[in-house]
Amino acid sequence: RVDGQRLWDALMELARIGATEKGGVKRLALTDLDRQGRDLVVGWGKAAGMTVTVDQIGNVFMRRAGTNDSLPPVMTGSHIDTQPTGGKFDGNYGVLAGLEVVRTLNDHGIRTEAPIEVAFWTNEEGSRFVPVMMGSGVFCGAFTLETAYAAKDTDGKTVGEELERIGYKGDQVPGEHPIGAYFETHIEQGPVLEDADKVIGVVPAVMGLSWYDCTVTGMEAHAGPTPMHLRRDAMQVAARIIPEVVAIANRYPPYGRGTVGMMQVFPNSRNVIPGQVKFSIDLRNVNDELLNTMHEEMTAFVAQVATDSGLDVKLERVSYYPPCPFHPDVVGAVRSATAKLGYSTMDVVSGAGHDAIYAARLAPSGMIFVPCKDGISHNEIEDAQPAHLEAGCNVLLHAMLERARV
Amino acid sequence: RVDGQRLWDALMELARIGATEKGGVKRLALTDLDRQGRDLVVGWGKAAGMTVTVDQIGNVFMRRAGTNDSLPPVMTGSHIDTQPTGGKFDGNYGVLAGLEVVRTLNDHGIRTEAPIEVAFWTNEEGSRFVPVMMGSGVFCGAFTLETAYAAKDTDGKTVGEELERIGYKGDQVPGEHPIGAYFETHIEQGPVLEDADKVIGVVPAVMGLSWYDCTVTGMEAHAGPTPMHLRRDAMQVAARIIPEVVAIANRYPPYGRGTVGMMQVFPNSRNVIPGQVKFSIDLRNVNDELLNTMHEEMTAFVAQVATDSGLDVKLERVSYYPPCPFHPDVVGAVRSATAKLGYSTMDVVSGAGHDAIYAARLAPSGMIFVPCKDGISHNEIEDAQPAHLEAGCNVLLHAMLERARV
Ligand SMILES: NC(=O)NCCC(=O)O
Ligand SMILES: NC(=O)NCCC(=O)O
Repeated sequence: RVDGQRLWDALMELARIGATEKGGVKRLALTDLDRQGRDLVVGWGKAAGMTVTVDQIGNVFMRRAGTNDSLPPVMTGSHIDTQPTGGKFDGNYGVLAGLEVVRTLNDHGIRTEAPIEVAFWTNEEGSRFVPVMMGSGVFCGAFTLETAYAAKDTDGKTVGEELERIGYKGDQVPGEHPIGAYFETHIEQGPVLEDADKVIGVVPAVMGLSWYDCTVTGMEAHAGPTPMHLRRDAMQVAARIIPEVVAIANRYPPYGRGTVGMMQVFPNSRNVIPGQVKFSIDLRNVNDELLNTMHEEMTAFVAQVATDSGLDVKLERVSYYPPCPFHPDVVGAVRSATAKLGYSTMDVVSGAGHDAIYAARLAPSGMIFVPCKDGISHNEIEDAQPAHLEAGCNVLLHAMLERARV
Repeated sequence: RVDGQRLWDALMELARIGATEKGGVKRLALTDLDRQGRDLVVGWGKAAGMTVTVDQIGNVFMRRAGTNDSLPPVMTGSHIDTQPTGGKFDGNYGVLAGLEVVRTLNDHGIRTEAPIEVAFWTNEEGSRFVPVMMGSGVFCGAFTLETAYAAKDTDGKTVGEELERIGYKGDQVPGEHPIGAYFETHIEQGPVLEDADKVIGVVPAVMGLSWYDCTVTGMEAHAGPTPMHLRRDAMQVAARIIPEVVAIANRYPPYGRGTVGMMQVFPNSRNVIPGQVKFSIDLRNVNDELLNTMHEEMTAFVAQVATDSGLDVKLERVSYYPPCPFHPDVVGAVRSATAKLGYSTMDVVSGAGHDAIYAARLAPSGMIFVPCKDGISHNEIEDAQPAHLEAGCNVLLHAMLERARV
């Protein structure tokens, strides 16, 4: 069993780097604070006897040797970058749970046959640099190192420059690092476990995601003198599309999701009929066929609204990844570890994307969820219970031991 | 008849002060550019033999003496401040048409019994300082001088300071300035005249206006992991209200108007269910009873949506003025001048607010509209035809002469 207090203390110490007044953490990828966080975790890894390698996109691998070092490592990990208004647990928990597993093995002098590795991936959040899940995405070849290096923050600084500056541009070619199996522990970021009063979420799959920008272009005009029938009101046309995003999600339960999270109105003046409205659409499902049907219904609906309204309505897909079912062996290892330890459990499909979906392209992968308060994440009030974090870490320990063999 | 070329030349010369690259004008109230514009117009007024007085809110009155100076003046005017992306005609036309009337009377040596006055009112646009129509509003007592002085721009500068700084804080107590009748020429700011191919709009009334801020408060949550039935999505609730704004306007034709022009979404992130959405509602009608019915239907609908959704929905009225029917004598003077001059004409209810609605609280008032290109105003591409501007000015001349008597 892991040391829950030591895990909690490590989380709290890491959370001091970039701590915000409201109790959250702001430690954006590749900033000086990210460097401090990386240095702290790497120091802990070395103190626990691990050797550290860094690849060209700044992914860090901390390795505890196995008795048979020709076997590919059993890996766990996550990320330590945060949202601008982030919390203490998202990502950080997955990395420090891995560290706690190694510390526990050390405490008990347990040798594993396969090596154990704890990784942290660069820029999972995608807040400072897009795309999200950058480090793991480059690692698995979802996009190129050049694309990632060229990504700019709002000040025009690139990932390439910033990696160099903080001293985390390594030598290893991303992906040229074998993985035997990959586990990731994470707070759920949703309310399902808390609602059902369960401690461990076994994650059979991650939903696929389709992101769109929808742009409605009408004609700006004065809100007073322009008769209703002569208007080309972009806001009203947008308001026809917005409810359909939810209607489509609701037609494909239980894992259909539809969200309009972002909107910009031009010129955004009280007495001007909007000439243009841009908004985002986020569609998800765990079944690729259903996600595709949702995509087709969205496309057809928008085309129909364009025809009906006579306005120009553009729907552009800006991101997509398919649903990612995790490997039955890894999911099975999590399930049996949970059963052995006697924690209450249920399956929870992940609605959020994680580095594990990219790792899964290269090796059998799976995830372990623990509850977070009110399902809230990406928020400074993100919170989780020490007992739940300890439980997830115990499950990780036992599942990894099953794969790495003692 | 007025000199259309001279009127046009004056418009173009004034439009140089604050001219923008796209052919518009940016001359915000009480800036250095406003001072330059005011000085130019005042200089023209003095050169035309007028005496100039300024009141404490910076309204400027340029007076051509009558043969019986104990009669209250027949006044015309408008404003010379512009929107940030404004045009050459909105407001400026009304002031320079008045100047052209005086120049024409001078050319022909015509004396009127009542004095003629040309006014320009401070801060009609309300872009830099709210409320809109500030100078005429203080003049008629719609709000106090203290309220107006305290209004701040985004840099924290007040109207009181800025009036002093540009040298236009006069001595006259606002409102202590008699008016016999008030005329205002203006571009229509709508498409009605152009659509009907008419030159002169006789304005029987200005629509009343009700402005609201609507705030929907739900709960921020991650767009992926949060099941549809557990969401408190402020955007979706807003999207139920937005179409009703138009539906209500359409139930009270032909002068019902309904617009949602402004929206802010929190936190406005692609993968976060909006926790709060704020938007503006602009309702108008020319009939006060109907405007009130529209207000009641809006209020009831929002309350119903709040009940149905379980979210907190606040509707706050932030501005209101009732419809303003103009005085039959002044409207009649405009109508008969138009007929005498043989211009094509129709009645056009003003959808936009104007200084004339505040002048109308103190004296018989009316307006003359001329077409503007595509009905566009509050835009740098605002445009109007010289022949139409000349025609409107001729109507003003003859209507004012009827009231001022030769
Ligand atoms: N874990 C997480 O928040 N990933 C960001 C991408 C997403 O919206 O799922
Ligand atoms: N004339 C004009 O644009 N006034 C501003 C107030 C309104 O929206 O009507």
